Amino acid sequence: MQSFIHVPPNSHFPIQNLPFGIFSTQQNLSPRVGVAIGDQILDLTAITTLFEKYVPELKNPSNVFSQPSLNSFMSLGKPIWQATRRFLQSILSHDNPELQDNEELRQKAFVAQQSAKMHLPAHIGDYTDFYASKEHATNVGTMFRGKDNALMQNWVYLPVGYHGRSSSIVISGTDIVRPCGQISPDKNQPPIFGPSAKLDFELEMAFFIGSGNKLGARIPIDQANNHIFGLVLMNDWSARDIQAWEYVPLGPFLGKNFGTTISPWVVTLDSLEPFLVNGPIQDPAPLPYLKDNIPSAYDIHLEVKIKPNNSDSFKTLTRSNLRYMYWSLKQQLAHHTVNGCNTRPGDLCGTGTISGPTEDSRGSLLEITWNGQNEVDGIKRKFIEDGDEIVLTGYCQGEGYLVGFGECYGKILPALQ
Amino acid sequence: MQSFIHVPPNSHFPIQNLPFGIFSTQQNLSPRVGVAIGDQILDLTAITTLFEKYVPELKNPSNVFSQPSLNSFMSLGKPIWQATRRFLQSILSHDNPELQDNEELRQKAFVAQQSAKMHLPAHIGDYTDFYASKEHATNVGTMFRGKDNALMQNWVYLPVGYHGRSSSIVISGTDIVRPCGQISPDKNQPPIFGPSAKLDFELEMAFFIGSGNKLGARIPIDQANNHIFGLVLMNDWSARDIQAWEYVPLGPFLGKNFGTTISPWVVTLDSLEPFLVNGPIQDPAPLPYLKDNIPSAYDIHLEVKIKPNNSDSFKTLTRSNLRYMYWSLKQQLAHHTVNGCNTRPGDLCGTGTISGPTEDSRGSLLEITWNGQNEVDGIKRKFIEDGDEIVLTGYCQGEGYLVGFGECYGKILPALQ
Ligand SMILES: [Ca+2]
Ligand SMILES: [Ca+2]
Ligand SMILES: [Mg+2]
Ligand SMILES: [Mg+2]
Ligand code: NI
Repeated sequence: MQSFIHVPPNSHFPIQNLPFGIFSTQQNLSPRVGVAIGDQILDLTAITTLFEKYVPELKNPSNVFSQPSLNSFMSLGKPIWQATRRFLQSILSHDNPELQDNEELRQKAFVAQQSAKMHLPAHIGDYTDFYASKEHATNVGTMFRGKDNALMQNWVYLPVGYHGRSSSIVISGTDIVRPCGQISPDKNQPPIFGPSAKLDFELEMAFFIGSGNKLGARIPIDQANNHIFGLVLMNDWSARDIQAWEYVPLGPFLGKNFGTTISPWVVTLDSLEPFLVNGPIQDPAPLPYLKDNIPSAYDIHLEVKIKPNNSDSFKTLTRSNLRYMYWSLKQQLAHHTVNGCNTRPGDLCGTGTISGPTEDSRGSLLEITWNGQNEVDGIKRKFIEDGDEIVLTGYCQGEGYLVGFGECYGKILPALQ
Repeated sequence: MQSFIHVPPNSHFPIQNLPFGIFSTQQNLSPRVGVAIGDQILDLTAITTLFEKYVPELKNPSNVFSQPSLNSFMSLGKPIWQATRRFLQSILSHDNPELQDNEELRQKAFVAQQSAKMHLPAHIGDYTDFYASKEHATNVGTMFRGKDNALMQNWVYLPVGYHGRSSSIVISGTDIVRPCGQISPDKNQPPIFGPSAKLDFELEMAFFIGSGNKLGARIPIDQANNHIFGLVLMNDWSARDIQAWEYVPLGPFLGKNFGTTISPWVVTLDSLEPFLVNGPIQDPAPLPYLKDNIPSAYDIHLEVKIKPNNSDSFKTLTRSNLRYMYWSLKQQLAHHTVNGCNTRPGDLCGTGTISGPTEDSRGSLLEITWNGQNEVDGIKRKFIEDGDEIVLTGYCQGEGYLVGFGECYGKILPALQ
């Protein structure tokens, strides 16, 4: 499969991918739906007559694709997402002349990614963050409770999750202000107030709910993939000192909700299907409502790089892979709704920090520096400093092509006075 | 102050109150903004020409008041809320003939509450729940960690809070399905799956954010009241057995997010001002960013009643008061944003369970029956059973009038098979 749009072999966005996003341009400031192909964006509002002709089951495409979010498209359900994807692969194919040879339409329909501004892909009604990597949970637990009590008793029975803040989810490229808050450096003294001294990233991915479920109903695990629209990269910025003081007994709050960055292109489950692999063996066996078919993990290579404020270049902090994650996306969604909790198009579910089995695959500075005991090799960093830049990337390796996620980037600004 | 609309002395909605809500009728199915007066609703979309004449600073009232949520009105800010309130008190006053004597307009402008359907007052972008009653935190802590470790060390230094689920917030009158989930009756055995056997209510109030703050900025405590639009009653339904198993280490999730009920009428801070009183003495003194002026508590009488499935009448379960709450609403909002977390119009913040100092003012069955050790006096209940109905009410006692919140009602349906 090949597109008439030139796609270099290292591009994240070949015709096998076709992720959805929301973009605007100087010429047209209205945020609208586009699909990434090579270094271009196909503006779906420019080809609505083609949609009317070839995807008649998608009613009113000019309305759906001129929205400033994907929520409307997401709500249409998996058969429509798949029909849209099939049509886009066809219309972009090198052997299809319809768009390829229509010079006037091509001029209107393609926008260079470089000249576009990306926006949040969806209005995110609710944001949930899971804690689904056993290695991450074990590392953190070992640090704070010792090796013998590292994993809580519930961890192997359910995908632990908690609600996060949707208002502070921002698109890649947004600066993040270092948070202030209460910190307790000495347990025998009252807490102090000041800027976090333990600012961290968390390497995560996140899935968008496409079609939701009603309050009081549930999504069975064998239906879960019909409700998941696609995935993005996510950096769950975390202030470890604020978090440590505040989190008992009700969980993280101000240590997390000052900012969460996601990548702009939503990679659909359909384009990830070739990269399904077996996940970790689950022992004890999950309860029936969490019993999953294998393979249900995805082989997605992940990397985090830092550009320290005094450096000109990025340095790799860690390399991990989504396949290490213990609880699958389907298990996460089945668990989330088993009590009747409703989900809506555009809801976002983070996987939790994705750490691997080795020291060089740890997904946070908390783990890499073991809570600041060590410095990162080669750079003087225990945690993130003002002016540092962090970037997450990820891709699947196909035969001769990548299915990639682009970048999830953020820079830290100094705290408010 | 008196209205030309008849208001009996025990009404929650005299001219001193004038809470805002979203309603629709059989004649006009569009949800729109109204204000409660006596047993009537003043339809603000019917008097937009009066707004244009008397509140010119409120631009485009026909658009603002025909929205299906209060978010647009909330976003206009406190001076507009106050001008609107002054105008409404004037136009409803018994000595103002303008609306009173315009028979045609009166016909259009008033709707009997009995014939209206109430909707959620706002699109709730984010929902936060605090844990701000010392008595509640102490009761729960004593039950689970013993008397000596009842309060966590952080509790007296900050208003503990966590993020909740906004999708499952429902309006008074909505049935709630008993949730299923993982439960661990025996710590030495794997968990089991089934319907919650410890379904509970939590007596709370909640405030709506009116005007928000940008990401990276904060709301200082002396500005907090300018950002709070008003209050409602809230029942944070809770499944104690699901919660107990899941909540370590990241907080409540499925034990809470199956449903949260709020009352339909948002009572403004301005109408509550006469009922400001001193809150509990705060010792240790709060950090400077939490230092509050007194009085900043509100004297709001609260009551919870149950109608057991086999009974014809409601029985009082508890009587409490918002004034018992240790951390003020202003402190909650200042804390919430001190790290730069942004808030938006329509965001909702629950106070946490409001328990008082006596046994008959406990705000949950968990506390009343001491985790099921005792039955409620006179009815065979340790927790809520299928078909039981729970209603919360609350009011302030003025001189010759009430400023009330109406009711927050819900009935429990059996679990899904
Ligand atoms: Ca996380
Ligand atoms: Ca609560
Ligand atoms: Mg975060
Ligand atoms: Mg609840
Ligand atoms: Ni929303």
